[in-house]
Amino acid sequence: MENAGMEALLVLNESNMNYLTGYEGWSDYVPQAALVTLGSDVPHLILREMDVQCATATSWLTDSHITGYEEALIAKPDGSPWARLAEIVQGQTSSHRMGVELTATGFGVLQHRDLIQVLGVEAFRNADGMVSQLKKVKSPNELAYQEEAAQIVDQAMREGIGAITEGARESDVAGIIMHRLCAGTDSVAGGPPKTPTMPVAKIANAPHLKWTDQRYSRGLQTNFEIGAFRHRYCCALSRTAFLGTAPDRLRRVHAAALDGFEGAFDALRPGNTCGEVARAFSNRFAPHGIRKESRIGYSIGIDWTDGGASLQEDDETEIVPGMVFHLIIGIWEPEEGYVLSETVKVTESGPVSLTEIPREPFVIDARPTGQEQLR
Amino acid sequence: MENAGMEALLVLNESNMNYLTGYEGWSDYVPQAALVTLGSDVPHLILREMDVQCATATSWLTDSHITGYEEALIAKPDGSPWARLAEIVQGQTSSHRMGVELTATGFGVLQHRDLIQVLGVEAFRNADGMVSQLKKVKSPNELAYQEEAAQIVDQAMREGIGAITEGARESDVAGIIMHRLCAGTDSVAGGPPKTPTMPVAKIANAPHLKWTDQRYSRGLQTNFEIGAFRHRYCCALSRTAFLGTAPDRLRRVHAAALDGFEGAFDALRPGNTCGEVARAFSNRFAPHGIRKESRIGYSIGIDWTDGGASLQEDDETEIVPGMVFHLIIGIWEPEEGYVLSETVKVTESGPVSLTEIPREPFVIDARPTGQEQLR
Repeated sequence: MENAGMEALLVLNESNMNYLTGYEGWSDYVPQAALVTLGSDVPHLILREMDVQCATATSWLTDSHITGYEEALIAKPDGSPWARLAEIVQGQTSSHRMGVELTATGFGVLQHRDLIQVLGVEAFRNADGMVSQLKKVKSPNELAYQEEAAQIVDQAMREGIGAITEGARESDVAGIIMHRLCAGTDSVAGGPPKTPTMPVAKIANAPHLKWTDQRYSRGLQTNFEIGAFRHRYCCALSRTAFLGTAPDRLRRVHAAALDGFEGAFDALRPGNTCGEVARAFSNRFAPHGIRKESRIGYSIGIDWTDGGASLQEDDETEIVPGMVFHLIIGIWEPEEGYVLSETVKVTESGPVSLTEIPREPFVIDARPTGQEQLR
Repeated sequence: MENAGMEALLVLNESNMNYLTGYEGWSDYVPQAALVTLGSDVPHLILREMDVQCATATSWLTDSHITGYEEALIAKPDGSPWARLAEIVQGQTSSHRMGVELTATGFGVLQHRDLIQVLGVEAFRNADGMVSQLKKVKSPNELAYQEEAAQIVDQAMREGIGAITEGARESDVAGIIMHRLCAGTDSVAGGPPKTPTMPVAKIANAPHLKWTDQRYSRGLQTNFEIGAFRHRYCCALSRTAFLGTAPDRLRRVHAAALDGFEGAFDALRPGNTCGEVARAFSNRFAPHGIRKESRIGYSIGIDWTDGGASLQEDDETEIVPGMVFHLIIGIWEPEEGYVLSETVKVTESGPVSLTEIPREPFVIDARPTGQEQLR
């Protein structure tokens, strides 16, 4: 903060508030903030009144570091919770050298105007990405949460793929996956997950679709991208499944994706940069002649993408032990669709995948005998 | 739009983009917009390149009304997808009389600056809430989706409450609910749901918490607030469950909540205003002497809260047939916790609840015989 010229920092992203204080309110649709000041080791939470109970239940902060603003300010056209939040900030600090996470959910120009007017600050310093820098190297405890989540997501993926059969509803497959992501394994309880992405179509090239009302029939491909959570720490995993006899294009695109995946995976080791990982992917993937425009991964942690680093050719972040990446070879092109991903931790001696499910396309070929084959 | 002095309107909230075009990309973490111009009946979608496939799969728009911007602009510190989005807007309209949904996810001051600079507009007109006004009265098709969702949420609530028993993990109860919300009933497939809210504690007064790692024991109360979805249209439902012998305070708070609920419910009929509904609640609830600061409900539709109207004393919106409200008596106070809610449609002849589960606290009293009683 000092280097950035800040004496106070308003953290507005709930993922970052959670990182600093443990707070879980799931309430970023209303104004809320964690205030960090240079003079104090302890942040101050400013929340909607009813969410104070969420903070006392989840955060390590004592009551004197949590302030609620009045419920009457919520959903009123002329009420401004941001102006009130600013007043509470003034009770904690008089500094005008203040950083704010400018790109936070619900913090638009009108909210910015209310906040800056009451505080009397000329301009906020942009604190976007500051907390993300702290988050990109995980502690042993953080890694342990992601490794526990890995056990859950492995089992959820196996059960979801196992439920695909002719006539099954897509929604039933989704339900089986979500049950496991929430319930967890016998030994590890699941935390609240994101909704699985699972487009089901002939080539399934739409990246972010969920399931539909339809039933499975032969010739349909499913691109699963799912994540399990422990205390908001995520382990993500993607696989492609195909119901019916695998077409040649599926084998070709899998071979390309796997080749690129392995190239990038091997490069995820200390000393390399994110850009070098991206180039290691391209070197192996490009010769296959399949178009892929999107990046191949990013730092993953609290609430999934955590903004720490991006596996793109021009990201020169150095790879160090304790980083965790979602390495995702997603092909979402007009003529082709495929997805293969794992959550990978970086150790002194190189990359370690957190999950165990094989790196292959799962072809469910319903035989005339009615027997299903999962291979 | 004409009355608001607009010739063009940039819709940035995905819920509103979905309302206007059918688009489902689940991608409001990157810039995207639906552009509406006075001269055309058909909106124009501007999306991240990979999400164009999501649009062709879900929207009624033809390809000529969907434009993707380059993947290379994503997650680049110096790339500005908003400037690029502005260029695409310029290809569709030269008007400077432009409305923008200023309070949209991810549209902060920096993004606003990029957009307005490229467009050369002096100031945007604030279009917050414009689309919500259209959404507050539901069509028969929209109502049908919410009624289908009601069947799912009723069953999910029964199954979740039925799974509470001594030693059960909270996460197992969550898993059972999420399975049903996703899978749907035998006749109606579920759509992607929000994560259930289900604080489990002695009085469970934290409003937005999810489940934890813990196991159930006697004396624990669960406040369920869950929603099922059909094509993004929601039916929400809340009930309180208690494991053990119900304490007197639970009976008292239930009596107060039910009294207030019924007062508000009966007032949800054409001719009344939202404010009158709120007062009808207070008239019945206040004599019980329990503190409750938060509002008692809001218009519900696409993606849950849809911004159409709020059940607060100073909201003078007139109640008309076709409106649908989530009537929620939530008590999230330092000393008390309880929740009772239903999704209610307004008809010519008065209010109709979409769900059927009884309005009572569900007390699961594990008897020495091991037999459970659900009443």
